[in-house]
Amino acid sequence: MQSRTAGSRTAASSEPAVPVDSEFHDLDAWWRAANYLSVGQIYLMDNPLLREPLRPEHIKPRLLGHWGTTPGLNFIYAHLNRVITARDLDMVYVMGPGHGGPGPVAAGWLEGTYSERYPQVSQDEAGMARLFTQFSFPGGIPSHVAPETPGSIHEGGELGYSLAHAYGAAFDNPDLIVAAVVGDGEAETGPLAASWHSTKFVDPQRDGAVLPILHLNGYKIANPTVLARIDDDELHSLLRGYGHEPIVVAGSDPAQMHRAFAAALDRALNRISEIQERARETGDTARPAWPMIVLQSPKGWTGPAEVDGTPIEGSWRAHQVPFGNARNDSGHRKILEEWMRSYRPEELFDDTGAPVPTIRDLHPEGARRMSANPHANGGAILRDLVFPDFRDYAVGLGGPGTDTAEATRVLGEFLRDIMVRNPTTFRMFAPDENNSNRLDAVLEVTDRTWNARIVPGDDRLAPDGRVMEVLSEHMCQGWLEGYLLTGRHGLFSCYEAFVHVVDSMFNQHAKWLRTTNRIEWRQPIPSLNYLLTSHVWRQDHNGFSHQDPGFIDHVVNKKAEVIRVYLPPDANTLLSVADHCLRSRQYVNVIVAGKQPELQYLDMDSAVTHCTKGIGIWEWASTDAGTEPDVVLGCAGDVPTKETLAAVEILLGFFPDLKIRVVNVVDLMRLQDDREHPHGLPAADFDALFTTDKPVIFAFHGYPWLIHRLTYRRTNHDNIHVRGYIEEGTTTTPFDMCVLNRIDRFHLAKDVIDRVERLRPIGAHAREHLLDTLAEHHRYIRIHGEDMPEITQWQWRGPETVTTSS
Amino acid sequence: MQSRTAGSRTAASSEPAVPVDSEFHDLDAWWRAANYLSVGQIYLMDNPLLREPLRPEHIKPRLLGHWGTTPGLNFIYAHLNRVITARDLDMVYVMGPGHGGPGPVAAGWLEGTYSERYPQVSQDEAGMARLFTQFSFPGGIPSHVAPETPGSIHEGGELGYSLAHAYGAAFDNPDLIVAAVVGDGEAETGPLAASWHSTKFVDPQRDGAVLPILHLNGYKIANPTVLARIDDDELHSLLRGYGHEPIVVAGSDPAQMHRAFAAALDRALNRISEIQERARETGDTARPAWPMIVLQSPKGWTGPAEVDGTPIEGSWRAHQVPFGNARNDSGHRKILEEWMRSYRPEELFDDTGAPVPTIRDLHPEGARRMSANPHANGGAILRDLVFPDFRDYAVGLGGPGTDTAEATRVLGEFLRDIMVRNPTTFRMFAPDENNSNRLDAVLEVTDRTWNARIVPGDDRLAPDGRVMEVLSEHMCQGWLEGYLLTGRHGLFSCYEAFVHVVDSMFNQHAKWLRTTNRIEWRQPIPSLNYLLTSHVWRQDHNGFSHQDPGFIDHVVNKKAEVIRVYLPPDANTLLSVADHCLRSRQYVNVIVAGKQPELQYLDMDSAVTHCTKGIGIWEWASTDAGTEPDVVLGCAGDVPTKETLAAVEILLGFFPDLKIRVVNVVDLMRLQDDREHPHGLPAADFDALFTTDKPVIFAFHGYPWLIHRLTYRRTNHDNIHVRGYIEEGTTTTPFDMCVLNRIDRFHLAKDVIDRVERLRPIGAHAREHLLDTLAEHHRYIRIHGEDMPEITQWQWRGPETVTTSS
Repeated sequence: MQSRTAGSRTAASSEPAVPVDSEFHDLDAWWRAANYLSVGQIYLMDNPLLREPLRPEHIKPRLLGHWGTTPGLNFIYAHLNRVITARDLDMVYVMGPGHGGPGPVAAGWLEGTYSERYPQVSQDEAGMARLFTQFSFPGGIPSHVAPETPGSIHEGGELGYSLAHAYGAAFDNPDLIVAAVVGDGEAETGPLAASWHSTKFVDPQRDGAVLPILHLNGYKIANPTVLARIDDDELHSLLRGYGHEPIVVAGSDPAQMHRAFAAALDRALNRISEIQERARETGDTARPAWPMIVLQSPKGWTGPAEVDGTPIEGSWRAHQVPFGNARNDSGHRKILEEWMRSYRPEELFDDTGAPVPTIRDLHPEGARRMSANPHANGGAILRDLVFPDFRDYAVGLGGPGTDTAEATRVLGEFLRDIMVRNPTTFRMFAPDENNSNRLDAVLEVTDRTWNARIVPGDDRLAPDGRVMEVLSEHMCQGWLEGYLLTGRHGLFSCYEAFVHVVDSMFNQHAKWLRTTNRIEWRQPIPSLNYLLTSHVWRQDHNGFSHQDPGFIDHVVNKKAEVIRVYLPPDANTLLSVADHCLRSRQYVNVIVAGKQPELQYLDMDSAVTHCTKGIGIWEWASTDAGTEPDVVLGCAGDVPTKETLAAVEILLGFFPDLKIRVVNVVDLMRLQDDREHPHGLPAADFDALFTTDKPVIFAFHGYPWLIHRLTYRRTNHDNIHVRGYIEEGTTTTPFDMCVLNRIDRFHLAKDVIDRVERLRPIGAHAREHLLDTLAEHHRYIRIHGEDMPEITQWQWRGPETVTTSS
Repeated sequence: MQSRTAGSRTAASSEPAVPVDSEFHDLDAWWRAANYLSVGQIYLMDNPLLREPLRPEHIKPRLLGHWGTTPGLNFIYAHLNRVITARDLDMVYVMGPGHGGPGPVAAGWLEGTYSERYPQVSQDEAGMARLFTQFSFPGGIPSHVAPETPGSIHEGGELGYSLAHAYGAAFDNPDLIVAAVVGDGEAETGPLAASWHSTKFVDPQRDGAVLPILHLNGYKIANPTVLARIDDDELHSLLRGYGHEPIVVAGSDPAQMHRAFAAALDRALNRISEIQERARETGDTARPAWPMIVLQSPKGWTGPAEVDGTPIEGSWRAHQVPFGNARNDSGHRKILEEWMRSYRPEELFDDTGAPVPTIRDLHPEGARRMSANPHANGGAILRDLVFPDFRDYAVGLGGPGTDTAEATRVLGEFLRDIMVRNPTTFRMFAPDENNSNRLDAVLEVTDRTWNARIVPGDDRLAPDGRVMEVLSEHMCQGWLEGYLLTGRHGLFSCYEAFVHVVDSMFNQHAKWLRTTNRIEWRQPIPSLNYLLTSHVWRQDHNGFSHQDPGFIDHVVNKKAEVIRVYLPPDANTLLSVADHCLRSRQYVNVIVAGKQPELQYLDMDSAVTHCTKGIGIWEWASTDAGTEPDVVLGCAGDVPTKETLAAVEILLGFFPDLKIRVVNVVDLMRLQDDREHPHGLPAADFDALFTTDKPVIFAFHGYPWLIHRLTYRRTNHDNIHVRGYIEEGTTTTPFDMCVLNRIDRFHLAKDVIDRVERLRPIGAHAREHLLDTLAEHHRYIRIHGEDMPEITQWQWRGPETVTTSS
């Protein structure tokens, strides 16, 4: 089942034990050139071609970078180039061990792409000196396979997401092959371990292929890796269990390794061709065992065997900079020079410092170069989504707060018709929650992606389905990121509490976007859209573990230029917000919306106006009639908005002449100062809404402190009193969730009485009544297990009705 | 290799197709009783014994709960009880599909534990009525296997952590067997997928055993599961790849399933005994293929086959409440009644409602009952750690800010000696970062836990090592949680940025702690201690993807009663804080500390005093001499503290009579109001430190907004100006990281000049000088690639020196 090549290199030398076959002679030279340039980047700031013996001032004072994984990445790069040329392949290369940044930078320079992107880093001696100096240097480039690296869609700084990114890139790209190196360190992470099962979500007819290359170089920072230390049988059993047919290449002698890896690659690509041809000719998309390669090679391959009597090559000590004192220790400097000269630079670069023709001409041409593949600059090949008019899905209203709808269900109809119009560029992702989140309508026009066994009674499963459901937030996020980075569009719907599972992945994507904003040749990609639903206020049934609205808090710490947060209070505002987000570029949009039947407030015209402003006074719910109010009631989120409106009615029942202003917030970042966020309201506008000195009672969907964090610079901040989720909850009724966290109508009304000075002397009766009602509620639900009918059946009647009737 | 039992149950009836063997007669009755009680919990609020036909008012108005997984969990419970009794086993039961909450609650009641913990839920008809009503009911109990559930150490609301928890419980408990049900939904998550490799970290001599039971019931909320839809060969190959020998039990006919599962369990336990005996008798701890069971049974087993013409049993529709209208639809009510009567309650409960003797006597006794196993109430069997005196590890100082030490390296020595004194109750956990985080000293006295292949040149690996390193933050966290929940102690050291990987796991653990604080019989467990190092200010080498100090922001949203955050500025304060945290109970302690050589400020006595107060004026660095200062410089974190002190010297150089007060914060929650956090400073004390009206320039380790979120209620909040990480960073020098984020000494000094009114008219020259110095720095690092010597060699000289020399 496996081909296995043993062999070993003579220590401390890149001379193969046996001569390299003539077939691989140039390829080996290319590999040596890439390795030479990689070492140069880590160590040198001058004398790039070693035209003179290395002197201290040629060495960087701070040595930063990772050598260990790099020669393996370069080896694979060289061989991928061979097959790209031979087979005219459209291929991108995802490097899981992203700390091997010097590798793809070297490759990009050899391919000429680097100098095209960054003309000052020219293909000559001066350019090579710049290439070396800039690496991990102030004002230069990062040490990882960063957005700055041509051909990269995967920074790899945080390990675990390479396979998910690779699959995301392959979906709906039938002619693309994504070579994905999985480091054996990365393979220990949860997200990576889960991602192997992506094999059950690939359609060989419509999707491209992922070729995983498990790179067993044996060591992490300081430890061996698990997969390198289990028996071969066990490892191959594991990989077959993931749905793969492993092809093994192991050894260290370059000559033997070239032969073996080339054969392995040919075998894997032949198999991929067979699979795809069969599927595309016969329509039989049954899941095959996809080929993959296991490459077992020494960590720090071709580097020094030992330094100061300690083994380096083939050890965890090769992980970063193999020896650190080359600037000050002439012995180390000598080792470095010998190491670099072992690649025979005089055979690799001409007098000007440019790669010699055999190397320069070895790589594929134009867009076939992996460093220039347009899929790795997805914005450049992006096609806009085709939209139906979201206004056509509007919920009709008899008036504000009288009709009920399920916001996400309405959105589902809009998404369904986007799905129809964009059959190859739009997907939806959910951790087994698409229907739970009430987006069922999309399944009228497509299926769930599924290429494992299907049995009678299964509901809408097919290999070419476009709703991707797997019980892994990590895979959903990773697939979507890969899909977006290659220029397509999508939406991730998730239970609000559990989106924290991907906090760290969000971080990395937000950082990617922020960085690409500063890179001229990177074209804007579609935004990453989250729909967070099954939210905290309606997790009364699953209980405390399902209640956490803190993802927003996490998101707002990232650069304002890339993050947006929306809390549409009803279906029509959700439609408007979703349309906006799906059209946007380079953002992470977080939309929090309910799925349960809730009151609807705005007809479509009002919704569009409100969402365009992002924040505004709801005049129909206010009694200040354009004058200075006694109190401002702020609200953001569907349930807080409903409770706020109910509080208005309660208050007017007691105090008919109370001047209340209701301000609803859809675009949360409007609360922040315009110096802090591009959506921030100027101070005067904020003051016009929230006054400069009146009490503000703000009912917020999430943790209350977030509102303070956003508004602390505001004139009236000292008067802003926020109610939100204060980590009180259990399995109870929906309204009791509000009561436990004191965001319910009665507590809000009481807050107003306690804070509006003129109410205090006259409010004692009202206050008592509110507390009695809360106690009554408490008794009622303990007996009946559900909320009182007057709570569940409450509808907005409006100030006029209330004031005249009371 | 596998035993496989086919068979099918007659539809819509719990009557087995073949009679239950007499051997399993009572066991089957126990199972039926548990199922009956589970259905009752989901549906009924009265008439628990069905003494009269079901009427609408017997049915809960809101039906909340999950049936699908429950009968399988109950089946396993019944069989585990059989082997516990037969073999006198010490066993705890971790249920991955924690939504099957009715199951263990039913079991606990049958075992009598429930009534012991909650006397009002007695073992009689009235108690049964309470048992039913309280489930998922206001004022009652949650729907999951929550802290309220006797015998639980795993809530299971967020899926993915069952195996890691199970292994955590088994470590250092040689006589314990942890049965861990892994749901096939949960198995799709990343953390679970990674956790299978825990097999490489178990010592059969010293540790207990985990018996994974993969429960293939085929469906999630709305989808089939991946593992249930791949070929058996592929599945078994996968499980063998994880290091297991799978034993398969598949079918639905109870009689056949009892026989097959009992045989499988006996086989698995025999194998575990063999493995452990061999290891313990011969000392050969080589990793075996550990047995595991694959249980394939229908989702919603023994429930209604179909309702309203739609299949329920064996379908995803059985996941939650199989049919919802039993209160109002007499047809549904009839199905419910038939379903419950199919368990033959009259055979299971006597006239009083108590379990009949055959059932009551079936379970193991006392602490052998899984619902009463003391390991599942870890605080009850907790042994205090034995400590050396942390003062003995003090770094000696010539004076504040003149000597250098690596704080975490010093801590490592203290931890080493804790490790020696607590050879079976203390472990350390790190994602391949123990040495990178400079805690190497612990490896002088123990090894890294490793039970995979060991080869020459490996560094401190052994099956009985106590430093647990795997490149998965999820596994580290899950193992540690399991270890703590069973009453042991530990420390998780992690790169600061990547601890976000476990944000969601932290949430769940914090919620667990908060809930157990309100459960009388739950005894306090050791705190979960994070050491976050390799922090944002020294990720100049790895770059932007490694820079994120936001875990603190995430943590402070959880209940104040369970979270603590410490930022010791040097080694001696770190020692004091670590000692305190390791002694504490029921908290999550987050310690952020540097690993790089940094200046040391406090001798041990001062450190202890400072840490005890948690916040305080550093008089030796201040020039206000007890009077009202011109400006307060606040700082928290090692690098911000250094920059603040350097700013003091710069400022005094220009303005020798400036009255500066330096306030250092170790215990971050001191900043918050005492009404918000138990560590919060009373308003008067805060005002005494930070004044009520003077400018405060606060240099903070993390995102600056957090300080505003903590202090917005403070009198002087409007004058607090915070510098921190503002998401600016790349691969650069350490000091440039500060400059990019404007937290460096020059920006801080400039902030003071800009904010102290009396300096404005006289500060122009100083301001210009500061900007020039920043420009000079910028030029210098772009040329030299390292910080200017006067920055890297800066030491504290003190106000006196400065003021006299300028």
